[in-house]
Amino acid sequence: MQARDIRLEQTLFDAICRIPLIDPHSHIDATSPTAKTLDDLLGYHYYTELAHSAGMNKDALGPDIEPRERVRSILGYLDRLDNTVQYSWFVQIAQRFFDFPRDRVRAEDADELWQMAAERLNRQDWEQHVFNVSNLEKVFLTNNFDEPLEGFDTSRCIPCLRTDDLVFRFGERETRQRLASVTGIEVGDLATMKRAVHQLFERFVSRGAKACAISLPPRFAPAPIAEQDFDRALRESDGDHSTWLTLGTFWLLAECCREFQLPFDLMLGVNRQVYRHGVFQGQDLFDSRTSMILYADLFNGFPEVTFCVSVLASTQNQELTSYAWIFPNVVTSGHWWYSNIPTYIEQDCRARLQAVPKTKQIGYYSDAYKLEFILPKYDMYRRILARVLAEDFVVARGWSEEEAVALARLLLRDNARAIFGV
Amino acid sequence: MQARDIRLEQTLFDAICRIPLIDPHSHIDATSPTAKTLDDLLGYHYYTELAHSAGMNKDALGPDIEPRERVRSILGYLDRLDNTVQYSWFVQIAQRFFDFPRDRVRAEDADELWQMAAERLNRQDWEQHVFNVSNLEKVFLTNNFDEPLEGFDTSRCIPCLRTDDLVFRFGERETRQRLASVTGIEVGDLATMKRAVHQLFERFVSRGAKACAISLPPRFAPAPIAEQDFDRALRESDGDHSTWLTLGTFWLLAECCREFQLPFDLMLGVNRQVYRHGVFQGQDLFDSRTSMILYADLFNGFPEVTFCVSVLASTQNQELTSYAWIFPNVVTSGHWWYSNIPTYIEQDCRARLQAVPKTKQIGYYSDAYKLEFILPKYDMYRRILARVLAEDFVVARGWSEEEAVALARLLLRDNARAIFGV
Amino acid sequence: MQARDIRLEQTLFDAICRIPLIDPHSHIDATSPTAKTLDDLLGYHYYTELAHSAGMNKDALGPDIEPRERVRSILGYLDRLDNTVQYSWFVQIAQRFFDFPRDRVRAEDADELWQMAAERLNRQDWEQHVFNVSNLEKVFLTNNFDEPLEGFDTSRCIPCLRTDDLVFRFGERETRQRLASVTGIEVGDLATMKRAVHQLFERFVSRGAKACAISLPPRFAPAPIAEQDFDRALRESDGDHSTWLTLGTFWLLAECCREFQLPFDLMLGVNRQVYRHGVFQGQDLFDSRTSMILYADLFNGFPEVTFCVSVLASTQNQELTSYAWIFPNVVTSGHWWYSNIPTYIEQDCRARLQAVPKTKQIGYYSDAYKLEFILPKYDMYRRILARVLAEDFVVARGWSEEEAVALARLLLRDNARAIFGV
Repeated sequence: MQARDIRLEQTLFDAICRIPLIDPHSHIDATSPTAKTLDDLLGYHYYTELAHSAGMNKDALGPDIEPRERVRSILGYLDRLDNTVQYSWFVQIAQRFFDFPRDRVRAEDADELWQMAAERLNRQDWEQHVFNVSNLEKVFLTNNFDEPLEGFDTSRCIPCLRTDDLVFRFGERETRQRLASVTGIEVGDLATMKRAVHQLFERFVSRGAKACAISLPPRFAPAPIAEQDFDRALRESDGDHSTWLTLGTFWLLAECCREFQLPFDLMLGVNRQVYRHGVFQGQDLFDSRTSMILYADLFNGFPEVTFCVSVLASTQNQELTSYAWIFPNVVTSGHWWYSNIPTYIEQDCRARLQAVPKTKQIGYYSDAYKLEFILPKYDMYRRILARVLAEDFVVARGWSEEEAVALARLLLRDNARAIFGV
Repeated sequence: MQARDIRLEQTLFDAICRIPLIDPHSHIDATSPTAKTLDDLLGYHYYTELAHSAGMNKDALGPDIEPRERVRSILGYLDRLDNTVQYSWFVQIAQRFFDFPRDRVRAEDADELWQMAAERLNRQDWEQHVFNVSNLEKVFLTNNFDEPLEGFDTSRCIPCLRTDDLVFRFGERETRQRLASVTGIEVGDLATMKRAVHQLFERFVSRGAKACAISLPPRFAPAPIAEQDFDRALRESDGDHSTWLTLGTFWLLAECCREFQLPFDLMLGVNRQVYRHGVFQGQDLFDSRTSMILYADLFNGFPEVTFCVSVLASTQNQELTSYAWIFPNVVTSGHWWYSNIPTYIEQDCRARLQAVPKTKQIGYYSDAYKLEFILPKYDMYRRILARVLAEDFVVARGWSEEEAVALARLLLRDNARAIFGV
Repeated sequence: MQARDIRLEQTLFDAICRIPLIDPHSHIDATSPTAKTLDDLLGYHYYTELAHSAGMNKDALGPDIEPRERVRSILGYLDRLDNTVQYSWFVQIAQRFFDFPRDRVRAEDADELWQMAAERLNRQDWEQHVFNVSNLEKVFLTNNFDEPLEGFDTSRCIPCLRTDDLVFRFGERETRQRLASVTGIEVGDLATMKRAVHQLFERFVSRGAKACAISLPPRFAPAPIAEQDFDRALRESDGDHSTWLTLGTFWLLAECCREFQLPFDLMLGVNRQVYRHGVFQGQDLFDSRTSMILYADLFNGFPEVTFCVSVLASTQNQELTSYAWIFPNVVTSGHWWYSNIPTYIEQDCRARLQAVPKTKQIGYYSDAYKLEFILPKYDMYRRILARVLAEDFVVARGWSEEEAVALARLLLRDNARAIFGV
């Protein structure tokens, strides 16, 4: 029988917080992983898009605006969204990292907070400090195919080959040029395409990459295409071959994942630029009319590849749970974006823990752009995880606290180690 | 950490109940706002459709049946549905408004209850009494475009222009005649259409209307059409131009909302007459295969119009939450019809409070046909809201009770005032 | 106000467990209803598919493998899925039926557990013992149309005509031959088809069948077809008439349900063989893009037939709830397969209890292949039901415990008796 046991939840939470984190998906820039100013934190799209949604003119964010002024504008709107969980992340950062003394951050705190942040963010050991306070061991990056992957410790900041541009923009001249400049291969047909992509994978793997990743729109349906169709699409630069290029390139990436033994992170369900006048990164939404059955051929065709699947909408979570329950090569991965709020995390986490083998679940990732966000986002998840473990496992099924924490360790650390080989 | 704190929930509930309500959507008839007999209450489609669903022959509701007999028939089936929340609304009305002394209303109570109701409903001050007991300040109406809007206090009963007939029945001669008779303009082309609709808006606004509203089927996809197409459709009364008429009229309404600065209430997702043999108003259902992405062009095209969006299915709630999070002009609105039951309200309310700016949420509306239903429906919502505020805000995030109640005040009153300008 | 009251939940659970069960859907083989070895239990697709999903090569399940070895293989993977609710069912069987003394079943327990099971499963009174311990009164079977239906007590094991093959495989010669051999009628046109299906129903009804049942894919949309189209499709054995055969046969079955007054169990939403290399019965999944509106014509066309509807995905539950709320002939039925895990059961159960007349709900069915699974599956459901009744009815609405248990009795027993006439 489920029951609330606050002390138990707190005990589990504390124990879970002692598990060193491996964060298997972020947008951290390894050469500049922490914020330099408060503007780097409030510039996170969650704040700009919510402030804009709440009434802020997006001109306040323009490139000509002085960063301190930009921060003032955003802070001026935060009281309209202080109910949101995103706001609570920011308050936690202010309190934990900057010693901000109050529970609410308001417009009139702008100068004080700017100063508090500036003092700390410029300390020499700040990056290591954030790693320590966050109990963070490793964090995965999101690297465009033409990034240099140099100048950082790849055992701590782990490269991941992001492939959206290759799959969805290969019809654009710029993408081919970027590929040519990084591989030295001018793609003009299937043979050169294969060589170029192959070389990308070689370069990434040699520099420590542990995953390939892509985000995909709700209607995307991967399928193998005939080699001659893909070849023709690659040869003819005019004409609209975007469907062939997209399908062919995607399948080729899956083949490379198989060959290089890289897990393939699939982030399902995002429509880009739905709100056309939105702020930067605040324009994308989704369409619930989608299904993982669109991926059946892919999952069947690549039994050797592990697909770490994220879904954008909680309404897709039962499919994700069921597909991971049935397909050996499908793993549930984190709580993404619009589903990364407590009520959806809780429901989705419960279902996965009740029906998917525990070794096939990546509990969480931060998706953060700056290291400082890893702590509050993971804390949100860990609170929920502690409650679910307390209710559904310790109280309802008689598990010991140690068993519950061991399950948390798989979700937060050991499964990522096993699946990505880190 | 969430936790149940019953005393806290009760304290919040009591405080929330002291907030005077602005009910931003109902079907109250301003010239006859309260029930005259028990039949007016049990004739609400929730009771007729549930009794019919539970086995009552719908002949028992026929126009030739004496009202008291009709009531007896429905009461005779209520014991089959005394588990439903709709039943609990009725019991609360019986207890609070008629001093009915028991927790269950049964067939054998028919005569006693009829009598108790009759005595009270015919008191002279009944309408004011219901307003007082319900702590109701203002209630929005649903007015057909050809309603006179006279004979009532429009500062208390606020007109709202309902436009389903204009959009979906403009191909019918009757609709054009109704429009002609109320505007004096015979629509025969685009120019006359614009003038007629314009005049409707002028009349409604001049008589205190504060919103335009429409309910829409799951497959509806608003889009601008070429003026000449709309014009041709309006000129040719034969031929099937219903798609053009529907799209053109809908877009024209949005333009008028912009011009007259009226919020546009969109109630998304209802299929009419699915159960063809159902009782009056008990025939409509829905199709989950829908998405708010169908409205992207509309939301992008009218940044100056506030769209107050209701969704019929809880499965659409994450889209609503996310679209309101991103689009400045999208507001979440209430818990509609098939989603207006506690378990869906709670999930949907939680998600919205966690991710949508608090100023962009209309917490609830009654959808009532008679004033007596406002109290039990709002009480259902307020109980849930008190729990969510207690758990997610006071306990989990350390808010004070005053802060929690202030959030409730936005949801129940102040947002409606700001958005509709009342 | 909802609240957790553990003692109340336990009291209700205990009372609910005293209600003798009528299990209205299972795959029990009436001539061999219990397990003979541990292999019969761990061979349940939940364990084979989850073990395979967690890494077990499916060769370990091959027909040449010795059963004890097969059991060892599966047990060797159970520690990877000991978080799942399916694992907890197995542990409960081991503890309750075999006196297994520990809370976890591990690979090293294989021989001991095999032995414990063997001793008990071969007792002469085992079947009756399982009936008694499970407080099971009657269980419905799933019978192919050409099963003999002999050699068992049909008042305890109730036949049910399963019609998937007739509807979806009537284009295959084998199906026609099976039909011919059981009815003596060679189907060659509509007249013979009607006679053959009629005779099937007669045979089943005469042997105590109380329901007709079928599982249907997400895209299925029943519709009447012209008699001559169905006739032509039946006459021409070549050519692809599968759509006509499917639609025509399905509608004919509904007509027979009407004529023979049999409820029609519709199990909506399964896609077969999505994971093509999966284990036996571990290949099917679903597609959330579906709607019960596809069944509107059917529900409208057969007001005399009771449709007991199960949905595979919890995302379809609000539709099921709403369709049962409106259509007199639609009944909610159990928690099926991928939705048969606690978090989805709880949400779905709550919604139905809040909005569907209590007489129109079949609370649960086991879907079991062996009698031993009825107890743990029903216990899972009864725990949840006890909690929902405690929170939503006793605490929130002031019901007495007796009233709550009476509601449970409808869900677990009396509605099945009334609807199926047993």
